[in-house]
Amino acid sequence: MKLLEPFGAEFDLKSGVMQSAKHLIQRHLSDMRGMYADVAAENALLEANNPMIYEVYTSEVPEEAGQVLYCTTVIHPGRVGDEYFMTKGHFHSLRDRGEIYLGLSGEGYLLLQTEEGEPRAVAMHPGTAAYVPPYWAHRTVNVGKEPFVFFAAWPGDSGHDYGTIEKMGFPQILVSRGDKPALVKNPRFVSGAD
Amino acid sequence: MKLLEPFGAEFDLKSGVMQSAKHLIQRHLSDMRGMYADVAAENALLEANNPMIYEVYTSEVPEEAGQVLYCTTVIHPGRVGDEYFMTKGHFHSLRDRGEIYLGLSGEGYLLLQTEEGEPRAVAMHPGTAAYVPPYWAHRTVNVGKEPFVFFAAWPGDSGHDYGTIEKMGFPQILVSRGDKPALVKNPRFVSGAD
Repeated sequence: MKLLEPFGAEFDLKSGVMQSAKHLIQRHLSDMRGMYADVAAENALLEANNPMIYEVYTSEVPEEAGQVLYCTTVIHPGRVGDEYFMTKGHFHSLRDRGEIYLGLSGEGYLLLQTEEGEPRAVAMHPGTAAYVPPYWAHRTVNVGKEPFVFFAAWPGDSGHDYGTIEKMGFPQILVSRGDKPALVKNPRFVSGAD
Repeated sequence: MKLLEPFGAEFDLKSGVMQSAKHLIQRHLSDMRGMYADVAAENALLEANNPMIYEVYTSEVPEEAGQVLYCTTVIHPGRVGDEYFMTKGHFHSLRDRGEIYLGLSGEGYLLLQTEEGEPRAVAMHPGTAAYVPPYWAHRTVNVGKEPFVFFAAWPGDSGHDYGTIEKMGFPQILVSRGDKPALVKNPRFVSGAD
């Protein structure tokens, strides 16, 4: 049996930038149309400069059972209307696979939901290990003024199901109220249980 | 089905200390008798003060398939003779489970070996994501003057097989040569293939 070779990948713990990243995913606002609550603000931003929302530096680990995939994610600071920049969010294709996040710099939130639309939120600071148990969809949000950077690791055979979230949204969104983050109901949420 | 609740655990990114750690494992030299090459130096240290070699702050994630276990490890600076302080090292009980390490502070090495005793070494600095592919035994070593701190994540059903390493040792050890780390053959190594 040919074994995979051990290897090290260097990245900056504060900026999240990985020097040897094999794949850099960059999501602009146009890659997540319809995910923010304020449609008018979204359209105005798309016309103005279609901002980069987040970047993901991924490793070169094969997507196979037994492997542990990892990445660093950088969510830039900013808002669409009063809603903070966030990731698309997803369930794992294999629903019973968990994930661990480690906050490295900046201030954020991990938002979660079950398939029935039961919501949860975990605040993340540098040094917060935020656990996504199996079966929970997960999205991260930057509620600070600096980039929000975190490390993530998950089982190699998890897969990503973005489609369900594109249809449902998340039950809660994070908006700025008096310059502080507030968790409020998402007016565009479509419960999967309905 | 009752789902596990998401949660956050706070720890210090530099010291590795986890405030809410459910389990703190502390390994003194007496917990790893016979693992260092210099028996006379080991015995002298055991008589003198039986130093704490490393500490592991573990999470409260269940050890089950689909979960992602994590911990922070702090290897204190020091040597047994000229061999740097290190962890016991292990294979996973399920051999085909990998692991990811993330260097947080200090300077170290990840040592690996196959069941046939084929060795590898990966230098770890703050920001090094060091990958342990499936089938490789793994041990970490502090080659600096400060604590070497790293985060680790691995599949929930991996299990730990310490016994094989207690019998074999690792093919290579890290020793101080002119105050710099050097990788040399382990005189006490017992190849599993012999």
